[in-house]
Amino acid sequence: MAALSTCPPLTRESVQTAHKRIKPYIHVTPVVTCETINTIANTAQKDRDASVNPPPEDKSSSSENFTAKPKVRLFFKCENQQRIGAFKARGAFHALGRLIDEEGIESVRQKGVVTHSSGNHAQALALAAKTHHVPAHIVMPSISTPSKIAGTQSHGANVIFSGSTSVEREAVVDEVIKKTGATLVPPYDHPDIILGQGTQALELEDQVVEILSHDASLGIRRKTRLDAVVAPVGGGGMLSGICTAMHGTGIKVFGAEPNFEGANDAELGLKFGQRVERVSTLTIADGLRTPVGEIPWTILSNPEKLAGVFSVSEEEIKAALRLAMERAKLFIEPSAAVPLAVILYNEEFRKLVEREAGPEGWNVGVVLSGGNTTVEAIARLFQTVH
Amino acid sequence: MAALSTCPPLTRESVQTAHKRIKPYIHVTPVVTCETINTIANTAQKDRDASVNPPPEDKSSSSENFTAKPKVRLFFKCENQQRIGAFKARGAFHALGRLIDEEGIESVRQKGVVTHSSGNHAQALALAAKTHHVPAHIVMPSISTPSKIAGTQSHGANVIFSGSTSVEREAVVDEVIKKTGATLVPPYDHPDIILGQGTQALELEDQVVEILSHDASLGIRRKTRLDAVVAPVGGGGMLSGICTAMHGTGIKVFGAEPNFEGANDAELGLKFGQRVERVSTLTIADGLRTPVGEIPWTILSNPEKLAGVFSVSEEEIKAALRLAMERAKLFIEPSAAVPLAVILYNEEFRKLVEREAGPEGWNVGVVLSGGNTTVEAIARLFQTVH
Repeated sequence: MAALSTCPPLTRESVQTAHKRIKPYIHVTPVVTCETINTIANTAQKDRDASVNPPPEDKSSSSENFTAKPKVRLFFKCENQQRIGAFKARGAFHALGRLIDEEGIESVRQKGVVTHSSGNHAQALALAAKTHHVPAHIVMPSISTPSKIAGTQSHGANVIFSGSTSVEREAVVDEVIKKTGATLVPPYDHPDIILGQGTQALELEDQVVEILSHDASLGIRRKTRLDAVVAPVGGGGMLSGICTAMHGTGIKVFGAEPNFEGANDAELGLKFGQRVERVSTLTIADGLRTPVGEIPWTILSNPEKLAGVFSVSEEEIKAALRLAMERAKLFIEPSAAVPLAVILYNEEFRKLVEREAGPEGWNVGVVLSGGNTTVEAIARLFQTVH
Repeated sequence: MAALSTCPPLTRESVQTAHKRIKPYIHVTPVVTCETINTIANTAQKDRDASVNPPPEDKSSSSENFTAKPKVRLFFKCENQQRIGAFKARGAFHALGRLIDEEGIESVRQKGVVTHSSGNHAQALALAAKTHHVPAHIVMPSISTPSKIAGTQSHGANVIFSGSTSVEREAVVDEVIKKTGATLVPPYDHPDIILGQGTQALELEDQVVEILSHDASLGIRRKTRLDAVVAPVGGGGMLSGICTAMHGTGIKVFGAEPNFEGANDAELGLKFGQRVERVSTLTIADGLRTPVGEIPWTILSNPEKLAGVFSVSEEEIKAALRLAMERAKLFIEPSAAVPLAVILYNEEFRKLVEREAGPEGWNVGVVLSGGNTTVEAIARLFQTVH
């Protein structure tokens, strides 16, 4: 990565500059709406058809308490349709572009880049590196699914296998660096990554204004801009980037986390005023198993930048995933369903929106962070015994 | 339905008129592209990574013969994002609108409409009827899946159960008509339905020009319009509507069918010069189990309107369904994957395109007809034994 000392400040202006830099390489992903899901969101949980809620054992016995009726209109930002199928392409293109600016293309091409990731960041860095004709070394646990290995190799990256613990992976990365001089591009804990991931929020902001102005031209009177964004939080690169992009606009940013086996480290960290440094969870939202990184934490722990984090159960994530697919026809990975799950099923969040948005309601951006899953993985989540 | 004698002629102009009529009630569905799937389509089957082809037992032993390398650029028309999740909304709104024009709204409201369908047509008619405050009676087999029954009821329709054979269903329809005077709105075998379904082709034509002109403004020189459309054929309402819409434009129209248990009745009918009147198949493409209707056949059997029909196996449909979901991130039902399966796996079709399109290639519209399936149904198709 470019040295920290050379990094632009973590401001909205820097996100705008990042956006200009990466625009030739990324997709402006679509923003879509779904009336059916809006209707479900605007109905109190206790009044809904049971089929759209998670199984009842998941709710506390007093389901008659689930009465909040926030008024929201949802705008799905389809980063599942981003290049490599996830928002990670933004950060990778930005970080590599900045590195090239700082060190010169020849030097970067000679040394290459390296990261350890079994997920979307691996493919994103491989694609960015291929685009700039830079060698990429990707350290992946040897137990990674073949489709992810193939996906990374298909972008021309040199995949190197390691054990699956972080100690084992980092040892292999160190070896690669010693041998090649490659520069480490971490998945989230770096300003250039954060600024890159934040660019989606700028697009979302403009796209919602455009959609709403079209409505206005049809004579439908509604608020004309976004009120809030809900995005998943794992390592926190994306959420802190969105907070940075939206800071000063009046648009509130919320984080969404799984709560299985302590995956809600951001929520807990905010509650106790201290970053949680270690998480060990096997939540189905496999992109969100990591604790928030140090630099993202400096942003997320600032209440002027982040309005709150809310968490949901595995069954709530599955129920939201089902609705995104069956009703909105959007193919997404489980991590991407977590914000929708918060909006539909987290009663605390729903009460907050009901209270703050009032009868006028809120236009809410919902980040669908990625779509890299397989039909077999969906089958394992939803198969029924015969 | 409006009496046949009052129907407009089956011409492109009539489709244009139909489009004006239904525009306030339907979505102009998005058209999306996917570079990864284009690359697969443009690679000879024998040269592809095995993971993107159907299992080898499905191919004849001489897989080295699968050498055709057509040059295509695919444009997916996302009717899975149409209202009620399928193109059927177009025909239903058009047919009901025409009926109201012919008979007067008061009369139609008094008598109501009726159909028998367990699928997308039921929901489409229910929605159109609700919109115009017309009572809708939908006869469904009592063995229909609960989600389809609930979907139809959610649009306010009166669902009446019957046995599952067509004789049993028609008997119940006759009873409803005798009791209420309701007008039958058939799913495909009527000019008003055909003209309505054809409207998607007009949108597709314009949307592709728009996408390609954007490319041109970026300095990418390509052909500037659509060369061909591939659409599924079941009862033939949609395919004959598309043929009608495209007639005289020079854009070729192809049909795509499953070949399991004789579901390829249109292909066989064209081969033998006679409409196949009965089909009994349990293909996974459950929207395509019906034989082509009489009026659609008059269009589909005209070689000036339809350029051909090609069929694919169940495994080829599953492979295409997987790619649409995993690569393009589009949630579709199996019937909607059949055109993509033809483009990717039907060697006869691929040779035809290679020959006719030549090195310049074709811009090909691919109709994704609907997205009404469930995660459980996907699980049953793809689950693996543990």
